[in-house]
Amino acid sequence: MKVAVDAMGGDFAPQSVIEGVLQARSEFTDLDFILYGDQAQIEPLIDDMTRLTIVHTTEKIASDDEPVRAIRRKKQASMVLAAQAVKDGQADALFSLGNTGALLAAGLFIIGRVKGIDRPGLMPTLPSINSDQGFNMLDVGANAEAKPEHLHQYGLMGNFYAKDVRGIENPRIALLNNGTEATKGDELHKATYQLLADDPDLNFVGNVEANDLLKGVADVVVTDGFTGNATLKAIEGTATIVMSQVKHAIMDAGVKEKIGGLLLRGSVGGIREKFDTSIYGGAVLLGLKAPVIKAHGAADARTVYYTVKQIHAMLANQTVQKVIDYFSDQAAQKNSN
Amino acid sequence: MKVAVDAMGGDFAPQSVIEGVLQARSEFTDLDFILYGDQAQIEPLIDDMTRLTIVHTTEKIASDDEPVRAIRRKKQASMVLAAQAVKDGQADALFSLGNTGALLAAGLFIIGRVKGIDRPGLMPTLPSINSDQGFNMLDVGANAEAKPEHLHQYGLMGNFYAKDVRGIENPRIALLNNGTEATKGDELHKATYQLLADDPDLNFVGNVEANDLLKGVADVVVTDGFTGNATLKAIEGTATIVMSQVKHAIMDAGVKEKIGGLLLRGSVGGIREKFDTSIYGGAVLLGLKAPVIKAHGAADARTVYYTVKQIHAMLANQTVQKVIDYFSDQAAQKNSN
Repeated sequence: MKVAVDAMGGDFAPQSVIEGVLQARSEFTDLDFILYGDQAQIEPLIDDMTRLTIVHTTEKIASDDEPVRAIRRKKQASMVLAAQAVKDGQADALFSLGNTGALLAAGLFIIGRVKGIDRPGLMPTLPSINSDQGFNMLDVGANAEAKPEHLHQYGLMGNFYAKDVRGIENPRIALLNNGTEATKGDELHKATYQLLADDPDLNFVGNVEANDLLKGVADVVVTDGFTGNATLKAIEGTATIVMSQVKHAIMDAGVKEKIGGLLLRGSVGGIREKFDTSIYGGAVLLGLKAPVIKAHGAADARTVYYTVKQIHAMLANQTVQKVIDYFSDQAAQKNSN
Repeated sequence: MKVAVDAMGGDFAPQSVIEGVLQARSEFTDLDFILYGDQAQIEPLIDDMTRLTIVHTTEKIASDDEPVRAIRRKKQASMVLAAQAVKDGQADALFSLGNTGALLAAGLFIIGRVKGIDRPGLMPTLPSINSDQGFNMLDVGANAEAKPEHLHQYGLMGNFYAKDVRGIENPRIALLNNGTEATKGDELHKATYQLLADDPDLNFVGNVEANDLLKGVADVVVTDGFTGNATLKAIEGTATIVMSQVKHAIMDAGVKEKIGGLLLRGSVGGIREKFDTSIYGGAVLLGLKAPVIKAHGAADARTVYYTVKQIHAMLANQTVQKVIDYFSDQAAQKNSN
C-alpha cells in the first residue's frame, strides 16, 4: 500500500512531515511512501531510503492561494502531483498539512467523488471527556450549502469510518440540532432527521445540542458544513482561551500562585492531553475515491505519525471501498425497484 | 416606569426572583414592579411593599410546555398576565426566568412586533477576554429559518442596544461566517454581508469566525438563529467542561494538587468571574414593542438584579422607541422614493 505525501504543506514543512513519516515507516511495514517536494530540502532529513521515493518539485501551493485556481494553474505543485499519483493508481491515499480548500479541490477535481456521493465532507475527530474514543463530526466546512441527502450520506460514511478506524461496533449516529426533540430545527435539519431515523443501516440516536458534544453523547455527529464549521471553531476557540486564562492565572500572579501551579503541573497538564486530538490523526475528506487526509498546518511529527496510522487503518480495512460498494449497491437496488 | 415580572418562572422561583427585585428596587427608585404569581408564596418573601404590586395567579407555564399552545391555553399563567399588562400599557417591560419559547410566543402574539421588523431575535451578552464589555450576539435561536433582511435588522437593533445599554459610541458590527474574507459563506451570509456593508448607519467590520468571538473582535455579532444557537451552546458547553476538568485535576488528585489548588484559588476563581455573564443581565428579545428579557432558569438573585438594571437602561434610554422610530423613518423614506 502506497501513501502519496505532500511533503511541502504546513508551517514546519518538510521537516515535521518527514520526521513523522520516518516514525510511521518503522511501525507500518506494509506501507510505502512517495514524498512530493523539494529534493534539496527533503533528502538531508533522511538517512535510509527504505520504502521511500522522492518525486522532486519546487512548486507548491501557499496557504492563502485561492484553492480552485491554485489546483488548476500550479500543475507541478507537490499537492497536485500527489493527488495525480492517486488518480493514476500509483498511490492509494494522500495526505497534506497544506491549504484545506486546495486539498478539497484536488480531491474533487483530480481524485474524484465516489459515485452516489453528492458532496464530500470534512470530518475531524474531536475529544470527549468520558472516553479516549472521541467523536467524529462532519461536515465541518467542505460545503457551505447542504441538502438533507448530503447530510444523510455523511451519516453513512461516518458510520463506516467509526467502525473501521475507531473500532466501534455499532456507532451512535446523531444530528447536531437546536434542541433534542425530533421536531426541532429548520427545514434542512427536520428533513435530515427523518432520513437518518428511517435508515435501517444506521444506529441513529437522535438530535444532539452543541453543549453536549464533548460529553461523548454520540460517536458520529452529522451537521451541515456551515453550522459544523462554526461549532468546531467555537469549541476550539473556547478551549484554547479558557486554558490560556488558567495558565495566565498561574504565571502572571504572585509567588503563591506560581508554587500552586508547579504543584498542579502534572494534573493540569493531563487536561491538555485529554483535549489533544493529535492521536486521532487529521481530518478526513470522506466521499472521495481514496483516503485524503488533511492534518493541521501546525502539526508536529507526532501528529503526522498518527495521520499515517489513521491512513493505514483506512487502507487495511478498505474503508473507502466499503463506501463505494455500499453506494453502488444502493443505486442498484433503486434501479431494480 | 413599570416592570411586569413573571415571578413564577425559573428553577428557584419565586424566591430568587423576588430577592433580586428587592435588591434592584433600592437602587432604581424610578421603577415600580408588578409581580405576577402565587400570592401565598410571594408575600412571605417581602417585608415592605413600597413600589410593588402583586397580581395573584396560580397558573404557570412549565419549562417543558409546548410554547405556542401554552400561551394560548394558559390565559391566567403568570407569564401571560405579565405580557398582557405590557400590551395594555399597564407596564413598560417584561422579564421572566421561564420557558424561552413561551416567552418568545408571548412577546410575538401578545406584545407584538415592531413595525418593519420581520422576526424578533434573541440576544445574550457574552464575555470577552480583553474587556469587561463583552459582546452581543443575535439571533441565538428565536428563529431557525432566516433571510438576509432579518440578519440586517438584527445588526441595526443590536447597534441601538450596544449604544444605549453598554455605552459603546460606535459599536463594531460583525457577521459570524465561515471565514473572514468578504466572499465567504453560503448564499444567506453572502447576501447579508452586502446588506450590512452597504448600510451607512452601521460600523460594519466584516466577517468574524467563531474561534475569535471571545477575543472581543466585535461589539455586536450578527448570525442566523440556527448557527447562533449552536455557536452559543458550543461556547457555553466547552467553557463549562474545561473548567470542570481543571477543578477535577485539583480535587480528585493527591495532597500535592490540593495544596496547589488552595494556593491558586483566588486567581483561578478570577477566571470564573471573567466568564460570569450575570452582570450583563439576561437575553433580550429584540424587535418587540417593549423590552422583553429572558434570564437563565437557574439565575440567582444577583442575576435578577442585573436583569432589572438592564431593563432600567433600556427604558431610561428609550431603546425600543428608537428602534420603532428608526424603522418607521426607513419605511417613510422608502415610500417617498
